[in-house]
Amino acid sequence: MTASASFTPRDNPAFILHGKLQTSYEQLPVPELGPDEVLVEVKHTGICGSDVHFYNSGKLGLVSCSSAMCLGHESAGDVVQLGAAVPAAQLRVGDRVALEPGTTCRMCDDCRRGQYQICEHMAFAAYPPHHGTLCRYYKLPWDLVYRLPDSVPTLYGAMMEPLSVAVHSVANVGKLRTNQTVLVFGAGPVGLLCMAVAKGLGAARVIGVDINEERLAFAKGYAATDVYIPPKQNDGEPRPDYSLRAARDLLAALKVPERGHGAIDLVVDATGAETCIQIGLNAVRPGGTFVQTGFGSPDVTIPMFRTVTNEIVLKGSWRYGSGDYPLSIDLVARGLVDLKPLLTHTFAFEDALEAFELTRAGKDKDGKPVIKCVIHGPE
Amino acid sequence: MTASASFTPRDNPAFILHGKLQTSYEQLPVPELGPDEVLVEVKHTGICGSDVHFYNSGKLGLVSCSSAMCLGHESAGDVVQLGAAVPAAQLRVGDRVALEPGTTCRMCDDCRRGQYQICEHMAFAAYPPHHGTLCRYYKLPWDLVYRLPDSVPTLYGAMMEPLSVAVHSVANVGKLRTNQTVLVFGAGPVGLLCMAVAKGLGAARVIGVDINEERLAFAKGYAATDVYIPPKQNDGEPRPDYSLRAARDLLAALKVPERGHGAIDLVVDATGAETCIQIGLNAVRPGGTFVQTGFGSPDVTIPMFRTVTNEIVLKGSWRYGSGDYPLSIDLVARGLVDLKPLLTHTFAFEDALEAFELTRAGKDKDGKPVIKCVIHGPE
Amino acid sequence: MTASASFTPRDNPAFILHGKLQTSYEQLPVPELGPDEVLVEVKHTGICGSDVHFYNSGKLGLVSCSSAMCLGHESAGDVVQLGAAVPAAQLRVGDRVALEPGTTCRMCDDCRRGQYQICEHMAFAAYPPHHGTLCRYYKLPWDLVYRLPDSVPTLYGAMMEPLSVAVHSVANVGKLRTNQTVLVFGAGPVGLLCMAVAKGLGAARVIGVDINEERLAFAKGYAATDVYIPPKQNDGEPRPDYSLRAARDLLAALKVPERGHGAIDLVVDATGAETCIQIGLNAVRPGGTFVQTGFGSPDVTIPMFRTVTNEIVLKGSWRYGSGDYPLSIDLVARGLVDLKPLLTHTFAFEDALEAFELTRAGKDKDGKPVIKCVIHGPE
Amino acid sequence: MTASASFTPRDNPAFILHGKLQTSYEQLPVPELGPDEVLVEVKHTGICGSDVHFYNSGKLGLVSCSSAMCLGHESAGDVVQLGAAVPAAQLRVGDRVALEPGTTCRMCDDCRRGQYQICEHMAFAAYPPHHGTLCRYYKLPWDLVYRLPDSVPTLYGAMMEPLSVAVHSVANVGKLRTNQTVLVFGAGPVGLLCMAVAKGLGAARVIGVDINEERLAFAKGYAATDVYIPPKQNDGEPRPDYSLRAARDLLAALKVPERGHGAIDLVVDATGAETCIQIGLNAVRPGGTFVQTGFGSPDVTIPMFRTVTNEIVLKGSWRYGSGDYPLSIDLVARGLVDLKPLLTHTFAFEDALEAFELTRAGKDKDGKPVIKCVIHGPE
Repeated sequence: MTASASFTPRDNPAFILHGKLQTSYEQLPVPELGPDEVLVEVKHTGICGSDVHFYNSGKLGLVSCSSAMCLGHESAGDVVQLGAAVPAAQLRVGDRVALEPGTTCRMCDDCRRGQYQICEHMAFAAYPPHHGTLCRYYKLPWDLVYRLPDSVPTLYGAMMEPLSVAVHSVANVGKLRTNQTVLVFGAGPVGLLCMAVAKGLGAARVIGVDINEERLAFAKGYAATDVYIPPKQNDGEPRPDYSLRAARDLLAALKVPERGHGAIDLVVDATGAETCIQIGLNAVRPGGTFVQTGFGSPDVTIPMFRTVTNEIVLKGSWRYGSGDYPLSIDLVARGLVDLKPLLTHTFAFEDALEAFELTRAGKDKDGKPVIKCVIHGPE
Repeated sequence: MTASASFTPRDNPAFILHGKLQTSYEQLPVPELGPDEVLVEVKHTGICGSDVHFYNSGKLGLVSCSSAMCLGHESAGDVVQLGAAVPAAQLRVGDRVALEPGTTCRMCDDCRRGQYQICEHMAFAAYPPHHGTLCRYYKLPWDLVYRLPDSVPTLYGAMMEPLSVAVHSVANVGKLRTNQTVLVFGAGPVGLLCMAVAKGLGAARVIGVDINEERLAFAKGYAATDVYIPPKQNDGEPRPDYSLRAARDLLAALKVPERGHGAIDLVVDATGAETCIQIGLNAVRPGGTFVQTGFGSPDVTIPMFRTVTNEIVLKGSWRYGSGDYPLSIDLVARGLVDLKPLLTHTFAFEDALEAFELTRAGKDKDGKPVIKCVIHGPE
Repeated sequence: MTASASFTPRDNPAFILHGKLQTSYEQLPVPELGPDEVLVEVKHTGICGSDVHFYNSGKLGLVSCSSAMCLGHESAGDVVQLGAAVPAAQLRVGDRVALEPGTTCRMCDDCRRGQYQICEHMAFAAYPPHHGTLCRYYKLPWDLVYRLPDSVPTLYGAMMEPLSVAVHSVANVGKLRTNQTVLVFGAGPVGLLCMAVAKGLGAARVIGVDINEERLAFAKGYAATDVYIPPKQNDGEPRPDYSLRAARDLLAALKVPERGHGAIDLVVDATGAETCIQIGLNAVRPGGTFVQTGFGSPDVTIPMFRTVTNEIVLKGSWRYGSGDYPLSIDLVARGLVDLKPLLTHTFAFEDALEAFELTRAGKDKDGKPVIKCVIHGPE
Repeated sequence: MTASASFTPRDNPAFILHGKLQTSYEQLPVPELGPDEVLVEVKHTGICGSDVHFYNSGKLGLVSCSSAMCLGHESAGDVVQLGAAVPAAQLRVGDRVALEPGTTCRMCDDCRRGQYQICEHMAFAAYPPHHGTLCRYYKLPWDLVYRLPDSVPTLYGAMMEPLSVAVHSVANVGKLRTNQTVLVFGAGPVGLLCMAVAKGLGAARVIGVDINEERLAFAKGYAATDVYIPPKQNDGEPRPDYSLRAARDLLAALKVPERGHGAIDLVVDATGAETCIQIGLNAVRPGGTFVQTGFGSPDVTIPMFRTVTNEIVLKGSWRYGSGDYPLSIDLVARGLVDLKPLLTHTFAFEDALEAFELTRAGKDKDGKPVIKCVIHGPE
């Protein structure tokens, strides 16, 4: 560990949220490493919808940001120091790495049976009360720090976090198999990544649905084989009737059979919108699977009669778990998922606030859609 | 097939529904057998909630009874004739048998991968336009006719249909494992059978929930280890808030942990009531399974935020499929499920209408709850 | 069904095996169709190793060919007549189709739970006492007759049978997931197809092993990312010691880790050779899967100590089942599996014997390896 | 943690193996606790076959005991000290507990996906170079220390280790479902516990096989519904022929069908004997599962032809993993597994050598079979 021993830390500036729309740069202590931990100098951090929620409102769902919290959890960087027990075969100082930013207890039933993403003791970056990664130095246990292959730039490493959300939904929870037909709701970053993963895993058809034509056009050029804009709901038309009509319209418009070969085997909803969830549950084939990965309103009405009589399976998908990061990195390294088109805007660390404002706006001053903003540094 | 050849049929009286509350006895032709088919002389037929729905309203969900239809689908009887290709090792004339009353195409994707219960070509007894089993003679392919062991009276054979609904939900779809904790909503026939199956499969705790104290008392004496009556919803209390409160109250009242060992691994809802579904999804442990087997309103609001962040799996369970009837019969034959307490009322074939009226009423003239009415014959 | 009604059959010449090395052309009756059956005019038939076994020795394993039997089971052709109950949406006269040449009872436990390939009543083409497909007219139930897309020539349709053996092993039984590492033993037709399927399903590495350098060179140019020739067994070296040495040598030579990311997740043995099986079970990662699809000697010694302490799963894979043909056809239609390089030799129906002799020889007169011989016709 | 702080350790005598048949009592240091660790005062330790192997020969399989090693790994005792981070809800000083005696890295792929029993960094009690539990004080992470319910005496807690081996094989790996038919080879401690678990999980039939009549009589009185002694192998009869004959004889003698309802769904071999493995693979139904939990010779010949053509699944089962200890404790607490008949002999700590000798002998001086010897203390 001589290399590690010689490490001389610089300061640790961090982009801190104090409450709704209140941010500042502050210094955090340089983390001290336990034997299994690794210190990473963060090079790039993507901005996630949840970051923007906290910035906008000081809260996310039921969770409030009650004290100062460093934002950011989609990061990649360089290993600068290794704990004494980190296996040399795993990581070395200087390695370029992607960060899986949630530590778990490793001892509860959920951790021990391999579903650590629902560990009750999860300490997740930029989820109160835990600081995030939008700073210079961030530490993690070595098994949550993934070396990037030479073919994957560090910048792309910052995308492994949202990509792993998609991999978890589509591959791990949705269990997509080659040649299945997939329907993805939402052409934001996670929805687009779900489409990319589905394509990368060999789906026969990847149908993207959104109400925004521009996003959908992007999806079509990116990873969707088909796209669809749902019809408008008529005045006075009950939501369930509308959703059933929209589902039937989707199948007819895209010539997708209702069941059997070619029917929709898997739906992934990355919007949380009730309309999308209902359309999805009406469009999936009997015996098919519906995966919910995004969330909007906390309570959602679903077509339960159809769910029962067609033995549909609805699964919640939360963050990512065992095997998701390695698969994400492999998909990018092999060219099966292309991250470049999604990285639309980059900012210096000093301009972090601007990045948040732009992500909130959704379009830049040239009218170009903002898909993913990445903040470099701090230098 | 000499024995079969000597069969001389009698007439085939049937209890026919003509429309809402309109019934009569009519003669149906004696079915002619194909080579793989078996003719059964029906001895006992239970009345199901769906029969009563058709009787009451002439329809069930979206399906109307537009022409005369023989009612009944929970039957057992004696084999009286065998098709030429029925294997002798499977069935003989005189065998006492339970009937699985739905024939499928055996050729579609769903049939071929073993999920025949959702076959699009299902022809189900007493489901329009198919005649039911409340008649003298009913025919089925031999693999849907199950010989009863000596220890199982033919009368109990008529209960294999609803018992298989429970076995399908709890064992096949819910994949209950010995020593898990199960929560069952509804203490009607299917809910009680779900509790009985859970107990028979070795569940550590079987928690029964209903709003009817009498039914719940019955459940406690029958197969539930614990019972619970949900609190009342307060005026103005939003349904989701109420359901969360009721779930927490249930866990506290019964000292059930929220997660880990002893928490609720599996919920089976046999009511279709939105309140029950919501309480169940709030009470099941993270990573747990919720199975919907009954249905009430076609659209139901569920706590999606909790479903996602806790990776809960919601599965529709429809009728029964591969392996369910044999397991049902075995559970009864081995004494792991006791059907006797559920068979509360019996009627002669001539009094079928009375059986329907009594089932509709829910209580007999002595105030005794009606759990299952069985109609004998026709003689 | 007017089109069908107008069908005027020609004669039905067949290539018949009478016993070891004794063949002739005979006329078979034109099959008469049941309501669910389809008559196909066979256009192309591949020769399988089992056909050659029967030809060579009059038997295969424990099964003898005791009466005259038409050979062939890898066939494609044109629909010429439809049974009265064949759904119009499924098949029309004139469709170009691939044949799944085994009919099952559809009523036993195995059929009903979706594992019909082990149905005890399987009637398989060219498996005594059932005639094969090397004739003009062959009939099957409509669900075993698969329409080929425009992009797939009928000739390739004859390859769907061996391709489905590979799909069954790799996808259905082996449950290969994208980005796994696969080791395939045997570079004959089935082994090559297993490699092609693994590649088509997105395997990160496909390692082909054979002792024949030419075949291995072909595999490397075809679908393997890596190939390996095992070292020779030393005189007096016990087989188990040798196999362990060869496994370690393989891992070292190809820089494959023993466990963790990049290790061998799945082994498919398409040889049946004890040496291959032992090397495979020593090379697969802890917790990995070994699938046996070919067979050689009926009894094989395996490293059980390693199998236990590393919780390895060994699965037998037999023919193909639910979903395999559709996936095979899709993989070819989408260009994920390339059949062309495997179709090395073709013959006219009149020259069937020559095709058998060439397949037996393994090389043609120019020294070119014989991978797959296809017989056209009869005209 | 005041209670813990007040703990004053006594000495830590240990029963140490120095090499083949060489033992002594030595003092080991009292373990110092890390924050997540628990110190247990051992009250009872069962002797396992592996302990006896080490004692007899100084080695087990490929592993040698090269330096002094404390024996024993089947232990229960009292919590005497808690690390600072042990959750109060989990354990308190004074709790009576069973020990899961293997610590893992919690960071490798195997640990993270929930298959920690094959963790490459497993440190297992009394497996070189790790000391065992046959001493006064032993420490473990808190999640490997299981509180015993009031109804389970501490003495029975020492049996949770071998019982968990059986639970792992039958429930976790073998996935036994209620009403299946199970065949268990071996009526030693692990085999008997496999039978007990199968019975406790509701197996319809539990068939015990051994060559020792006394053991088999015990099995029949304990947990087997049927027992069977295989016929003798004839002179010159090839082993595979013999095994097939014995399998057929078993099925015929016990009237077990070869396939379908009532056939053998699961075989568990707890002997490692080639004969048993072969008989088991010939007796299991098509599509059934064979689990290997014990091991004898490192290499074993299996009937591969049958395994392939019947799609049999052979699984290695190693020790125990996630969920196995809790299920073991529950099965005993609920009276579904009865441990009392297995605890045939007990010894004081000072007489440990005698316990080893008696276990090696297999019968006591009265001719009574030795099933499980437990050593109390040290006092």
